[in-house]
Amino acid sequence: MKIKYNLKKKDGKARYGVLDTNYGSFETPMFMPVGTKATVKSLTPDELKDMKCGIVLANTYHLWLRPGPEIINRCGGLHKFMNYDGPILTDSGGFQVFSLAKNKEKDITEEGVHFKSHIDGKDLFLTPEESIHIQNLLDSDIAMSFDECPPFPVTYDYMKKSVDRTLRWAARGKAVHSNPNQSLFGIVQGGEFEDLREYSCKETVKMDFDGYSIGGTSVGEDKDTMYKMIDYGVRYLPEDKVRYLMGVGDPIDILEGVERGIDIFDCVLPTRIARHGQAFTRTGKINFNNAKYKEDLGPVEEGCDCYTCRNYSRAYIRHLITTDEMLGGRLLSIHNIRYLVKLVEEIREAIKNDSFIEYKEEFIKKYDNKEKKQ
Amino acid sequence: MKIKYNLKKKDGKARYGVLDTNYGSFETPMFMPVGTKATVKSLTPDELKDMKCGIVLANTYHLWLRPGPEIINRCGGLHKFMNYDGPILTDSGGFQVFSLAKNKEKDITEEGVHFKSHIDGKDLFLTPEESIHIQNLLDSDIAMSFDECPPFPVTYDYMKKSVDRTLRWAARGKAVHSNPNQSLFGIVQGGEFEDLREYSCKETVKMDFDGYSIGGTSVGEDKDTMYKMIDYGVRYLPEDKVRYLMGVGDPIDILEGVERGIDIFDCVLPTRIARHGQAFTRTGKINFNNAKYKEDLGPVEEGCDCYTCRNYSRAYIRHLITTDEMLGGRLLSIHNIRYLVKLVEEIREAIKNDSFIEYKEEFIKKYDNKEKKQ
Repeated sequence: MKIKYNLKKKDGKARYGVLDTNYGSFETPMFMPVGTKATVKSLTPDELKDMKCGIVLANTYHLWLRPGPEIINRCGGLHKFMNYDGPILTDSGGFQVFSLAKNKEKDITEEGVHFKSHIDGKDLFLTPEESIHIQNLLDSDIAMSFDECPPFPVTYDYMKKSVDRTLRWAARGKAVHSNPNQSLFGIVQGGEFEDLREYSCKETVKMDFDGYSIGGTSVGEDKDTMYKMIDYGVRYLPEDKVRYLMGVGDPIDILEGVERGIDIFDCVLPTRIARHGQAFTRTGKINFNNAKYKEDLGPVEEGCDCYTCRNYSRAYIRHLITTDEMLGGRLLSIHNIRYLVKLVEEIREAIKNDSFIEYKEEFIKKYDNKEKKQ
Repeated sequence: MKIKYNLKKKDGKARYGVLDTNYGSFETPMFMPVGTKATVKSLTPDELKDMKCGIVLANTYHLWLRPGPEIINRCGGLHKFMNYDGPILTDSGGFQVFSLAKNKEKDITEEGVHFKSHIDGKDLFLTPEESIHIQNLLDSDIAMSFDECPPFPVTYDYMKKSVDRTLRWAARGKAVHSNPNQSLFGIVQGGEFEDLREYSCKETVKMDFDGYSIGGTSVGEDKDTMYKMIDYGVRYLPEDKVRYLMGVGDPIDILEGVERGIDIFDCVLPTRIARHGQAFTRTGKINFNNAKYKEDLGPVEEGCDCYTCRNYSRAYIRHLITTDEMLGGRLLSIHNIRYLVKLVEEIREAIKNDSFIEYKEEFIKKYDNKEKKQ
């Protein structure tokens, strides 16, 4: 069965909906944690469910290299392999190919991309067909089309050629997609160029995918440019298909994305900053390497309902982080993921109550986004 | 309140008992996992309870350096600090002082030991009084006397002097011990010398501690010598006090210890080998770096009741271990600790049924202890 998106309510462009999958339904907007190698670092699937995560992402590139899609397939697919019976989305591998390989170590041809493995330097070749074939074997609920993800900025001419190639790659991938239980998403590219986003969007939609992604954000552009890219990319998408903004998970960016009509977000941010001792709070990020927490008996954030905040003090978290104890990163990952999932829960309530903009403004007023200031 | 040991049943010298503490009672023999820095690496206290761990060890030396006993005390003591409401034992710091500091970097005097911090090389001085003072502040249920833990082998003369100093240190520590809710153990030393073990044992018992440890094992001696040390050390201990063999947690060694009258064991082995991809099974240790597990859909060990074996395949564990994913060490730590706790559960049943020796021989027949062969 393919996924089915049910749009339940709109508040401006912000959408509240439900996505039905073979592994259960979840409400949108939703934040999706990243389980790069079929594991959200340090956490179990049970913990993800406790946090009310609706869907998890796994990275095709990493699983292609290790353990290999054939092994996962023979182990019964990704759900069984990682013991997770909720929805799973796999990316195409494209982003990793374009970000992990150094420029001189990749060669983009019409056929696909030649590059070197980030593990052992081995020559690799990924094509749209191979990406879909790998994802078919992984048996995720949602597969992504293989696209070129150019850095920011590139010239208009480069982006035009890239968008056309990505469209041809999307068609090639769709032609070979063969897993009847897996949905396939198209990806809108076009950088910061309004007409290229429109062109990419309209041509991708013509191919009739099961959902659509906005790609090419978080690749070096400033925030205002990112928000424009979302505006341009979303404008011509059909209302009855789900929309996924790739690689975005900053709280403010989630709010800006929802305002523009995005339904699903993913990002390594909550788990990566956790391992470095940082936690999201409603007033901004805090860093447990700061000595001021050393005797602080309060929770990471007052009022938070996560396992970490219900059970551990800031003083203990700081001790774990400053002594490099694995439990520290684990407990902060739980808090940070739950924080973003709670954020989208509140966003959904606000959309239902026609108060999304008020909610967003209230949130931003309290939140000190230090990244913005830098 | 001090701990109270209730001897319930003997089978030869093997003892089945119950230890009452301020944080609940547990049955002995018991295996105690090591939570070096107030955390059993990667695991939560909830998980330790799920595994039926009766008691947890924390290291005084490590907590003295970071975060410092005053901070833990002001945070309400170790139980509150690490959110664990079961019994906690702290060691004296002696073992770490003698094992982490290089020979030339420590100076043993009658007053105490001068040595350098393994973190920043800072000059440190630990005395029997300071060790007890730190443990009083940590507020563990059981504190250990500060002893000298000589390497193996040393001369008879050195060991004789060391035993006498350890006795004087034990008396000094006992004199300043001031936490009414904390019990204090004496430590029997004397190396492989029968008369020194007897002397150390009798003199330590005269001081009337709340329990007794056998020290100076697992410091380089062969297995037969270790078993002799236990025999010699236990012989003159009172039946109505609990006995703890420090730093021993190999399955065969636990069986040999129980046979000789030991009640409590601790060791970093189950968590350390887990992080290196090894798991205990009834037929010996297995290593998940071995390619033969790459498509193995069975649990780590058939019939094991641990969370890991109930939920994950060998293929997935191998993937996590070979890709350095933290969840791999976490899941194997759960299995390995549960394995040893299950072992002592079965040992207790065997003692109750007067079948300990049969149980032990049956276990050893199946268990291929590769360490012995090396």
